[in-house]
Amino acid sequence: MIGKNQFNSVYRLHLYRKALQRLKQMGFVRVFSDNLADAAGVTPTQVRRDFASFGLTGQKRGGYSVQDLLANLDVKLGKEKPQNAVVLGVGNIGRALLNYRGFAPAGIRIVAGFDSDPRKIDGKAAVPILPLEKLREFVAKNATHVAILAVPEDQAQAVFDQMIRAGIQGVLNFAPLRLTSPNDDVVVHNIDVGLEIEKILYLVNQMNKE
Amino acid sequence: MIGKNQFNSVYRLHLYRKALQRLKQMGFVRVFSDNLADAAGVTPTQVRRDFASFGLTGQKRGGYSVQDLLANLDVKLGKEKPQNAVVLGVGNIGRALLNYRGFAPAGIRIVAGFDSDPRKIDGKAAVPILPLEKLREFVAKNATHVAILAVPEDQAQAVFDQMIRAGIQGVLNFAPLRLTSPNDDVVVHNIDVGLEIEKILYLVNQMNKE
Repeated sequence: MIGKNQFNSVYRLHLYRKALQRLKQMGFVRVFSDNLADAAGVTPTQVRRDFASFGLTGQKRGGYSVQDLLANLDVKLGKEKPQNAVVLGVGNIGRALLNYRGFAPAGIRIVAGFDSDPRKIDGKAAVPILPLEKLREFVAKNATHVAILAVPEDQAQAVFDQMIRAGIQGVLNFAPLRLTSPNDDVVVHNIDVGLEIEKILYLVNQMNKE
Repeated sequence: MIGKNQFNSVYRLHLYRKALQRLKQMGFVRVFSDNLADAAGVTPTQVRRDFASFGLTGQKRGGYSVQDLLANLDVKLGKEKPQNAVVLGVGNIGRALLNYRGFAPAGIRIVAGFDSDPRKIDGKAAVPILPLEKLREFVAKNATHVAILAVPEDQAQAVFDQMIRAGIQGVLNFAPLRLTSPNDDVVVHNIDVGLEIEKILYLVNQMNKE
């Protein structure tokens, strides 16, 4: 069972890793918990606590070696394993994610798209678009267990159930419907873009009322 | 200054509102805090606390009236005000958001896109795509203060600074770079799709290691 705390600390490790990659590009050799705290928007104490809980250590006086920390983080974050995912639902959002250039720098590869509409199927595309019925076979053959769900709201629950049966264990859900994990072996995270915007609109309207 | 707690409670109000809309469609007349708790993935106590803090009351024994609660939530959430937003950066993600059908049911309207690439400009499109230099003028004329940022990472900070100067007060950032609010009058929320996937991949890999 993966608790919310672990979810957040893993997220922060990825934020630190990203900041470290940028620092490395900029020629930095050493880094301090304060630097990483700024980059990730947390306190330096939080950085040190996260590193300690994942067994990452630094020099007492001289901060951390950027190179060593990156290498350690890569191991801790399992970056040596294939970072493959599939996209379910090749509509507006799904297609954008198939072509999204932000994945490659993070080592993530979208290896296939799936759709129930026969007109969208294209096995010859750079990233092949396959029929939804082929998902189970694909998951078994390619050991790809993470999927982005980007189908319309009214199909989301059914496709979600189908993908879990097909062996998907990690879901990033973009459908505007809150999906919950059916059991401890499935990780689900929801991103509802409409809700996010509503929240921001509300807060801005509140500010302008004052 | 908008604290994290307020951000989250407003988010929950939107989740409740969405569940209520669905219950109304299904013919429900009354609803209990337990129903809304299930729909939003929180405890019934949390629901009652949220409603109390926003001055929303129910009948002691009979739960809440779906109709009344929806009407009250709409007022509390400022739904009578225009719910307009613009999209900055008309690449893969930006274009998907311009055409995203999930916004209309929430009453959100994307009123324009902006891009720095002259080839993308199209003032005659259903949702016009305008040059980035026109943003300040557009914001002033249309009182639209919320924007989705979907430019590439290397342009994100510069475009962000430019949009704040142009009068944008609420930003949903999709660029894979953590942006922070420059002052108390600007709300910024970051969605880093790559990081979200990395987190899920990590957790799934961890599970499969055990």
